[in-house]
Amino acid sequence: MPLTPDQLAEIETARANPQPTLRAVSPGMEAHLFRAHPVLDHGFVRVIDYMGDDAAIVQAARVSYGAGTKHVSNDEGLIRYLMRHWHSTPFEMCEVKFHVKLPVFVARQWIRHRTANVNEYSARYSILDREFYIPEASALAAQSTVNNQGRGEVLEGAEAARVLAWLKSDAAQAYDHYEAMLSQDGQQGLARELARMNLPMNIYTQWYWKCDLHNLFHFLRLRADAHAQYEIRVYAELMAQITAEWVPLAFRAFEDYRMGGVTLSSKAIDALKRMLRGEAVTQESSGMSKGEWREFQEVWG
Amino acid sequence: MPLTPDQLAEIETARANPQPTLRAVSPGMEAHLFRAHPVLDHGFVRVIDYMGDDAAIVQAARVSYGAGTKHVSNDEGLIRYLMRHWHSTPFEMCEVKFHVKLPVFVARQWIRHRTANVNEYSARYSILDREFYIPEASALAAQSTVNNQGRGEVLEGAEAARVLAWLKSDAAQAYDHYEAMLSQDGQQGLARELARMNLPMNIYTQWYWKCDLHNLFHFLRLRADAHAQYEIRVYAELMAQITAEWVPLAFRAFEDYRMGGVTLSSKAIDALKRMLRGEAVTQESSGMSKGEWREFQEVWG
Amino acid sequence: MPLTPDQLAEIETARANPQPTLRAVSPGMEAHLFRAHPVLDHGFVRVIDYMGDDAAIVQAARVSYGAGTKHVSNDEGLIRYLMRHWHSTPFEMCEVKFHVKLPVFVARQWIRHRTANVNEYSARYSILDREFYIPEASALAAQSTVNNQGRGEVLEGAEAARVLAWLKSDAAQAYDHYEAMLSQDGQQGLARELARMNLPMNIYTQWYWKCDLHNLFHFLRLRADAHAQYEIRVYAELMAQITAEWVPLAFRAFEDYRMGGVTLSSKAIDALKRMLRGEAVTQESSGMSKGEWREFQEVWG
Amino acid sequence: MPLTPDQLAEIETARANPQPTLRAVSPGMEAHLFRAHPVLDHGFVRVIDYMGDDAAIVQAARVSYGAGTKHVSNDEGLIRYLMRHWHSTPFEMCEVKFHVKLPVFVARQWIRHRTANVNEYSARYSILDREFYIPEASALAAQSTVNNQGRGEVLEGAEAARVLAWLKSDAAQAYDHYEAMLSQDGQQGLARELARMNLPMNIYTQWYWKCDLHNLFHFLRLRADAHAQYEIRVYAELMAQITAEWVPLAFRAFEDYRMGGVTLSSKAIDALKRMLRGEAVTQESSGMSKGEWREFQEVWG
Repeated sequence: MPLTPDQLAEIETARANPQPTLRAVSPGMEAHLFRAHPVLDHGFVRVIDYMGDDAAIVQAARVSYGAGTKHVSNDEGLIRYLMRHWHSTPFEMCEVKFHVKLPVFVARQWIRHRTANVNEYSARYSILDREFYIPEASALAAQSTVNNQGRGEVLEGAEAARVLAWLKSDAAQAYDHYEAMLSQDGQQGLARELARMNLPMNIYTQWYWKCDLHNLFHFLRLRADAHAQYEIRVYAELMAQITAEWVPLAFRAFEDYRMGGVTLSSKAIDALKRMLRGEAVTQESSGMSKGEWREFQEVWG
Repeated sequence: MPLTPDQLAEIETARANPQPTLRAVSPGMEAHLFRAHPVLDHGFVRVIDYMGDDAAIVQAARVSYGAGTKHVSNDEGLIRYLMRHWHSTPFEMCEVKFHVKLPVFVARQWIRHRTANVNEYSARYSILDREFYIPEASALAAQSTVNNQGRGEVLEGAEAARVLAWLKSDAAQAYDHYEAMLSQDGQQGLARELARMNLPMNIYTQWYWKCDLHNLFHFLRLRADAHAQYEIRVYAELMAQITAEWVPLAFRAFEDYRMGGVTLSSKAIDALKRMLRGEAVTQESSGMSKGEWREFQEVWG
Repeated sequence: MPLTPDQLAEIETARANPQPTLRAVSPGMEAHLFRAHPVLDHGFVRVIDYMGDDAAIVQAARVSYGAGTKHVSNDEGLIRYLMRHWHSTPFEMCEVKFHVKLPVFVARQWIRHRTANVNEYSARYSILDREFYIPEASALAAQSTVNNQGRGEVLEGAEAARVLAWLKSDAAQAYDHYEAMLSQDGQQGLARELARMNLPMNIYTQWYWKCDLHNLFHFLRLRADAHAQYEIRVYAELMAQITAEWVPLAFRAFEDYRMGGVTLSSKAIDALKRMLRGEAVTQESSGMSKGEWREFQEVWG
Repeated sequence: MPLTPDQLAEIETARANPQPTLRAVSPGMEAHLFRAHPVLDHGFVRVIDYMGDDAAIVQAARVSYGAGTKHVSNDEGLIRYLMRHWHSTPFEMCEVKFHVKLPVFVARQWIRHRTANVNEYSARYSILDREFYIPEASALAAQSTVNNQGRGEVLEGAEAARVLAWLKSDAAQAYDHYEAMLSQDGQQGLARELARMNLPMNIYTQWYWKCDLHNLFHFLRLRADAHAQYEIRVYAELMAQITAEWVPLAFRAFEDYRMGGVTLSSKAIDALKRMLRGEAVTQESSGMSKGEWREFQEVWG
C-alpha cells in the first residue's frame, strides 16, 4: 500500500477545508485533489493543484483571434479547431501539478520531457525508503523477437520464478548494505550522496511534476501509446483519465486528433489515393520501405 | 480609460460568483482577480488566474530535500535559504496568468522572455483599436549623454510640444489610412495582415501572459530595474506589487537577495577586502575597467 | 538592394579565408556561408554558422539506440525511421545560425518560436535605417472572404495605387519625424527608445537567429506552409532550400513526413476506411464538422 | 581505461582528415576534438563538435547594440561588459557538443539542466556494459556532520574496506543476474527494458550532450562549485578547462564575475557599508539569520 494511515489522514484533512475562490473551478479535478491513485506495486499519482479548465482555453483563444473566432459556433467547435490546426498556445493556458511516486528507471524516461517543472526527492539530503518495483507475473515479459525495444510473450514457470527471486533478493541485499553503509552506529557512516549509488533502478523515488496542458498532451501521446514501456504507460493512462475529467472538451479533441489519429507521409497519401481509385498497391509500387509498409498495413489492411 | 462600462460590468459579474475549492488560496490574489490596474495612458494589467502560494514553495522544497529541510526552523527561513542558494525549482511550483494591454514597442521587449506562455491578440484575424501610447510630459526625455540606451533630461517647451504633436498626428493619420485600406465600402479592402503594417509601434496590443514564479522574478529583476525603459518598468513595478500580495514571504526574499542585492566580481571582492583593511583603492590598483570602477563606486562610494 | 558595396566586400573577405577543421563539414552550407540571399524588397537571409550534417544525426541516434539501430540498413533508412516515429533528439544535434533582415511585423510572428537564440538590433541603442517593406503589386491582396486570416484576390487599379501611396507616404513622414525628433541640432533630441515608437511596423529590423534542426523543421512546417502569411513564407521557403542543401537526407524525410504529410483524426480514418470498402461517406455520416469535412475533401476529393 | 584500442584508432582516423571550412575555427577546440579525457574510473568527456568562438559573441552583440557598442574599445572589454550586465543572448550564439560517459547517479543530477539537447544510450534497445563506478579511497567520505548534503572526513580502515567490498560485490552480482535474465540460452530471456531495473546506479551510461555557452556557464557555475558532489564536479572541472581553451575571453569574464564572484543581499550590503565605516557588526545587528551570517563571514572574515 503506497500510503501510511498518517498520510491518508493528512489527505482527508487537506480535503476537509474548502475555501471560496473566484478562479475557474473544475469539479472533476476537485474530486481528485490530494487523493492518491495507486500505480504499480508502491507508486501513486496525486493531483496537488491545477489552473484553468476548458473555458480558459476558449478565453485565451478569443483574446488571440478576437472577432476571428466568432464564426465557430461553440466552445467545443473552437477547441477542436485549435487542436486540428496545431494552435498550441491556448492549451498552454492550463496547468497541473502532480505528486508522483515511481521507480527510478521510469523517472529516467519521464524526465526527458523537458518542458515541465520538477522537484524530486533528493537522496543527497535524505534516505530512500525500502521500496522496490517487482513486476507482477503478467508484466514479466520476454524480449520481443521483432522489435528491439519491445516485449514479447510472458515468461513462464521456472524462468519467471528465477527472475522474480533475483529481483527481490538483489534489491533486499543492496538495501541492507545501503543501510549498513549509512549507519553511524560504531562507525563514521558513508555520505548519503555516495551510499545511494548501490541501489538498483527499481527503487522508488517521488517528485512534484508541474506541466501545462499542451505539454501534458504531448507527454500522454508518447507515454500512453501502445509502444511505450508498460511501467510508464500505466502512469500515463491514469493521468489521461484524470485529464479527461479536468478538461473534457479538450481531452476529447486530443483523443480524436492525436491519440486516435495517424500521420500519413506523402507516399502514404499517394498509396491511399490509388487504393481509393481501386488500384492494388504493393510495397514495391508504394515507394515505401518494408518498415513503413508494415506500419501502413497495420492501419489500412 | 482602459475599460468600457460593459467590460467593467463583466469583471464585476466574474467577481460576484465565488466557488469552493480545495486548492491553495491566496487572499491577496483573490482581491486582485480580474480587476484592471491602469498602466500608462491606455494599458492595464489584470490577474486572470494563479496557482500556489508561499506554502506551495515550502511543500515542494520539503519533497526535494526531505528530512534535510528540518534544520530550517520555519517557512520564511526555508524560503530565504532557497533564494540565497539559487534553488529555483520550488519557486517554479507557483504560476500566474495576467491579461496585459501594452504598446507594441513594449511588447517587443517583453516577448524576449521566452519561458512564458503567451496568447496575443492577432491583427491578422482582427482589427486593432485606435489607441496609441502618447507619453506624459514628465516621460518625454532626451537621449542620455552618458548612456547609449538611457534617458536624460525631460524635453522642454517647443521641442516637447513638437514631439507630442508629431506622435499624435502621425498615429492618427496612420490609423485613418489603416481604416481606409481595410474598408470594403466600394472597394475590395486590403487584407488585415497587410494593413497592420502601416501602424506605428505605439499602438496598443494585448495578451494573456502566463509564467511561473521563478521566471516571473527573473522578469521583474530585469524590468523593474532602474535601467529598464520606463514604459516597461511601470508594468513590472505594478506586477511586483501584485506578487508581493500573492507570495509575501517569497517576495521579501526576492527583494533582499535579488532586487536589493548586488553581484561582486572577484576583483570587486579583492578591492572591498583591501578597503576593509584600511587601504585606499583606486581604479588602477583595483584592476577594474573604468566602467566597472564607476559602477563599483556607485554602490560603495 | 539589401547590401552596400562595403558589406559585399566584407562578405567576400570572410569567404576568402578557408581554414582547416576536424569537424563535420557540409559542402552545401560552405557554399552559402555569409552570402546574402535577398528576400522581399530590402530583406535577406545569410548563413553565419552551422554545426553537424546528416551523419551527425545518424551518429547521435546510434549512441541512443546502440545495437538497436543495426537492423536499419543505411543512414537514409535510419533518418526516415527517426522522423516517422517522432524521435526528435537526434535532429537536435545539428544547429544553424542565420543573419536575417526582415520587417518588424514579420519579426513579431517569427519571435513566437521560443526555442531559438536571438540577438536583435536594438533601437534603444541605435538608430534604425530608412527602409520599409512596400509590397509588390502581386502581393497586395484583399481580405479573404472565406478565411478570417487569409488573403483573397489581388487589389486592382485605383485601390492598389491608393494603398501603395499611403504605405509609402506614411512611412516617409514617420521616418522624417523620427529623424527630426532624434536630432540634437539646436535642441535636446528625444531619447532613441522613445522616438522609435513613431515608426510603422513595415520598417526593417535584423537579427541573428540560431536554432537546432528539429526546431527549425517545426518552424519551416508552420511558416513554409500555404496558410502562413506570404511575407514570412518567403523567408521560410528560402531557409528550406538552404536546409535541403545542408542535410539532404533529413530534409527529404521532413518533406515526405511533415511538409507533404497530413494528420488524420480517428473520424477521418473511419471515413477513409469506409470509402476504401466502397461506401459513400457524407459530412453527416462522417461525424465531422463542416470545417473538418471541407479540409478532408481538399485532400481526398 | 575507458576506450578500447579500436575506439582509439577510430578517434585517430577521425582526427587525420582536416577539411577546409569558412566557419569560425577555435584552435583550442580543434586540439580537443574527438579525444577522450578520462574522468573517474571508467568515464570520459569528448568534444564532438562546436560552433563559434569569442569573436562570435562580439559579432552578435554588435548586431544587437549597433553603434552602442563602439564606446567599448575592444573585444575583451565588450565581453566583460556583457557578462557584468547579464546580457546573456550573445553567449547563446556559441554551441558545443560533448560525448560523455558517466555513472547513472551522476546522469540523474546532470539531466536536471533542461536547456540542453541529449541523446542517451538506451537500455531498452541495447545491453549495458559491465562497468561500475567504484570510488577511490580518497573519495570515500563520511556524511558531513554540519551539512545535510555534504561530505565529511574520509572513511578509514575496516569501514572503508567494507564499503568498497559491498559496492563491488553487489554490482558484480546484479550484473551477473542481469546477464542471466537476458540470456536466451535455453530460456525465453527477459526483455531488456525490464532487466535493466536490477542494475545499481553506479553503472555507467553515456550520452551526447549539446548546449549553448550561456547555459554551459550556468551548468559550470553550479557543478564546478565547491558545494557540488565530487563525482559531477570532476566532469564540470574538466569541461571548464576545455571551455577556457575554446573561448578564452568569455571564460575569463565568467571566472571573474560568476565563479569567483559573490552575490550580496541588501542586508549584506548594509553590513559591509557599516564595516567600511569602522563599525563592528554582529549577526544580531546585521539582521541576518545564523546561516546567512556564517556564509557572510566565510567571505568577509
